[in-house]
Amino acid sequence: MNQPLRVGIAGLGTVGASAVRLLESRSNGLVPRTGRALRITGLSARTRERDRGFDPAPYSWFDDATALASNPDIDIFVELIGGEDGPALDAVRAALKAGKHVVTANKALIAKHGLALGRLAAEHDVQIGFEAAVAGGIPVIKTLREALAGNEVDHVSGILNGTCNYILTRMQQDRIGFDECLAEAQRLGYAEADPTFDVQGYDTAHKLAILTSLAFGTEIDAESVYVEGITSITLADLDAADELGYKIKLLGVAQRTESGIEQRVHPTMIPKSAAIAQIDGVLNGVAIDGDAVGQVVLVGPGAGGDATASAVIADLADIARGLKIPAFGRPPETLAPYTRARMRRHEGGYYIRFSVVDRPGAFARIATCMADNDISLESIVQRKRAVRSAPAAETEPHAQQPVVLLTYETTEAAIRQALETIETAGVIASKPQIIRIEAARTA
Amino acid sequence: MNQPLRVGIAGLGTVGASAVRLLESRSNGLVPRTGRALRITGLSARTRERDRGFDPAPYSWFDDATALASNPDIDIFVELIGGEDGPALDAVRAALKAGKHVVTANKALIAKHGLALGRLAAEHDVQIGFEAAVAGGIPVIKTLREALAGNEVDHVSGILNGTCNYILTRMQQDRIGFDECLAEAQRLGYAEADPTFDVQGYDTAHKLAILTSLAFGTEIDAESVYVEGITSITLADLDAADELGYKIKLLGVAQRTESGIEQRVHPTMIPKSAAIAQIDGVLNGVAIDGDAVGQVVLVGPGAGGDATASAVIADLADIARGLKIPAFGRPPETLAPYTRARMRRHEGGYYIRFSVVDRPGAFARIATCMADNDISLESIVQRKRAVRSAPAAETEPHAQQPVVLLTYETTEAAIRQALETIETAGVIASKPQIIRIEAARTA
Repeated sequence: MNQPLRVGIAGLGTVGASAVRLLESRSNGLVPRTGRALRITGLSARTRERDRGFDPAPYSWFDDATALASNPDIDIFVELIGGEDGPALDAVRAALKAGKHVVTANKALIAKHGLALGRLAAEHDVQIGFEAAVAGGIPVIKTLREALAGNEVDHVSGILNGTCNYILTRMQQDRIGFDECLAEAQRLGYAEADPTFDVQGYDTAHKLAILTSLAFGTEIDAESVYVEGITSITLADLDAADELGYKIKLLGVAQRTESGIEQRVHPTMIPKSAAIAQIDGVLNGVAIDGDAVGQVVLVGPGAGGDATASAVIADLADIARGLKIPAFGRPPETLAPYTRARMRRHEGGYYIRFSVVDRPGAFARIATCMADNDISLESIVQRKRAVRSAPAAETEPHAQQPVVLLTYETTEAAIRQALETIETAGVIASKPQIIRIEAARTA
Repeated sequence: MNQPLRVGIAGLGTVGASAVRLLESRSNGLVPRTGRALRITGLSARTRERDRGFDPAPYSWFDDATALASNPDIDIFVELIGGEDGPALDAVRAALKAGKHVVTANKALIAKHGLALGRLAAEHDVQIGFEAAVAGGIPVIKTLREALAGNEVDHVSGILNGTCNYILTRMQQDRIGFDECLAEAQRLGYAEADPTFDVQGYDTAHKLAILTSLAFGTEIDAESVYVEGITSITLADLDAADELGYKIKLLGVAQRTESGIEQRVHPTMIPKSAAIAQIDGVLNGVAIDGDAVGQVVLVGPGAGGDATASAVIADLADIARGLKIPAFGRPPETLAPYTRARMRRHEGGYYIRFSVVDRPGAFARIATCMADNDISLESIVQRKRAVRSAPAAETEPHAQQPVVLLTYETTEAAIRQALETIETAGVIASKPQIIRIEAARTA
C-alpha cells in the first residue's frame, strides 16, 4: 500500500466545508476504490473560529492559502476560495510550482488562467482537476475529456447556471415577473446578494469557455464568448414561447461552424420536446453531440455544497488512482488556437417581439424590411389570439400591441440589418426583443 | 513516446465494423489525448470476405478468436463476438491469461462471468473495460466507477433496452398494439428476429446486474434479478397511466433496502415529470442517486454500431492513458457478497387493473380484500370516466369493465395475498394486471 496522499483545503465556505466533511466520512471507503488513502492534513480560510460542521483540531491551520499550497506536508492542494485572480490564483500557482496536484471548483480562475495553469501543471508533471468548476456534481469534464475521446464533437449546449434556470422556470410555471422571482431566489439562497454575475450570463460564459476547450481541443478563450443575460425576458416572451411550442432557457452554446467556433450565451428558445428543455428549476444539464455517439445529455445538481464536493472528491480519487491526463485532455502545446466565429455570421431562427405603433402600413414596413433582408417568416403571433402561417396582420393594426415573429433560418447580420432599418423607420414603439432559436438536434 | 498499443478485434458485426472504422479514423487524433497510439494489428470473425466498410488487408486475420486473443502481437483484445459462454468467454479468458487487456461490449458475458473475469484480470494485472456493455454510448460505467466515487449510492434506475422503450413509446404515442409495434421495430432493425431476450426483460437484467455491482460494491449476481417483460402491457394500461399522470417504462431498478439490495426489472409507472419519464424511443437513460451529489441522469443512444463503438474507444483510450482500476471499481476480494432483498418485501405503490364480473357486491369484495391486507387506495378509475379519490364505484358495477386501482405504498407480499384472495373469490374475469409505481425521487 502506498503512503496516504495528503490533502490541503483552502476556502471553507459551503463547498469547502462540505468537501472536508465528505472526505472525512469517505476516506476509508475510498481506499479500495483508489488504492491509496486521502488524508486531510491542512486547512486554510479567513476565520478559523466558525462552526462548519467538523472539528478543525486534527488539521494544521494556515491563515495564508499560499503557505498551505506550498507546504511540504501536502501532496494535493484543493482551492475553494473563488475569484479569478488574487489569493486563489496565487495559491494555485504556488502549489503547481511546488509540485502539488491541484483540485479546484473555481470556474472564473480556470476560464481566465486555465491555459497557463495547464502549462504550469504539465511543466511540473502534476494534475489539475476542475470537475467541480462546471455543472457542479455532473461529470461533464470527465465525459468530454475521457468518455467521448473517440468522438469529434461539433456542438455542446448547456444550462449551466441554476439561478437563471430557477428564475426562468418559476416565471414560466407561475407567471411571476423577473424581479419578484429574483428576490425569491435570493431568499431561498439560489441567488447571490449581487446577482449580476449570474443573471447577466457571465457565470455561464466562464463554464462554457471551459467546455469549449475540452470539446474542441482549442485554447480556452472566455473573452470571446458572446453574452446576453436574462434580465430582459418578460412574461410576454414566455407566453409566446409556450404558445409556439418552446421553452426559454439561458443556454451556453459552443458550436463548430465553417468560420470557426461559436461560443454564445443568451436566452434561447428550445423546442419543448428537446431533452434539455425538460431541465427545470435549479438543475443543470449539458447536451453533447459527438459524431460517433450521437447526443449524450447529462442532468443533475449544478450547485450546492455536497454536489460540488462530490466532484471535488472525484478529482481527488482520480489523482489517488494515478490518473495522468493533461488539464484540457490534450497537452497544452497541442491545443489549437481558438478561432472565433463572429456572431454576425451566426445562422438560426429568430423570435422577435415588436410593439408596433398604431399607424397604417406600419406592419407592412416591418414585413418589407424582413423581406429586403431575405428573412422568411415562419409564424406571426399577434395579440396572443392565434399562430398564423402567413403575414395577414397588415389590415388590423393594434397600437402598441406586441407582434411576435418567428423567422426561418437566417443570419444574425440580416436580423441586425433589418432591425436597424425598422427602428429608424419609426414604426415600433420600443426596442424589439430578440431571442435566438435552437433547433432540435435529435429526433 | 511509448510504443503503440496493438489492438486485436474479434467479432465484426455492426459494432465490430464500427469500432474498426472509428479507430482507423481517430487513431492519430487520439495520440495527444492518450499519450500512446492505438493500432489495430489483428482481426477475427467467422467470414473474412464481406464488405464491412473498411479494408482488412493491413491486418492479420485469425479464424479463431482465441488464437487472436493470445497472439503475442496484440496488447489489447477487443471482444465483440457476443454470447455469455462459448467463443467469447474462451477468448476473453485466453487474453487475460496471456496478460492482455480486454475491452468488451458483451453484457451477458460480464453479467454471468464478470466477477471471475475481474479476478483473472487482477491476477494478471491487466484491465478489463466494458463501458460498451451497458447503455451503449452513455458513460454510465465510468460515472459509477470514477465520477461518483465519493458517494454512497442508494438507488439506480435505468431504461436500458432501446427495443422495449421504442415499443412502449410507440404504443403510447400512436395507440398501436404491442404485436404491431414489435413487428415494426423488427422492420426498422430496432428488434431482433427473436425478440424474446429484449421484450422479456433479460437484456435489461444483465445490464442492471452490472450497474448494481458498480453502484453498491457487491459481487455481481444476475441470477437474483426479479424480471418481468413488457409483453402483457396493453393500450388500456397506457391510457390509464396517461390519465393518472404516469408513463410506463421498462425499468431496471437496483435499490438499497433494510433487508438487502433489490434488483428488479419490470414495467414501471413513472410520474410524467420525472426526468427518466421523458426518455422516449430507442434512447436509454440512467438515473443515479448518490448521497452527496443528489440525482444525476445520463441520457443517450443505448445501441447502434457507432454509439457502442464510441464506448469501446473510450475504454481503449483509458487503457492507453494507463488507467488502473479494478473491473468493478474495487478489488474483487473487497466486493461484498450480494444480499438479495426478496421481492415479497418490496415496498411501493401499485397499479392494478381488473376486469370485474357483473355481479352485485363484486367490487365490494375487492375493496374488502384490499382493506384486509392493509392496502389503502389512492385512486380508482372506472371506464375511463374519471379519477376518483375514494372508492365510490361500488354502487355501479360494469360487467367485464376494467377497473383500475392505484394503491398507496404497500408491500409486494400484501398485494400478492390480496390478489390471491380476489382471484379465488371469482369476482374478476381474468388475471389482474399489476404494474409497480416508482415514486419521484427528486423535486
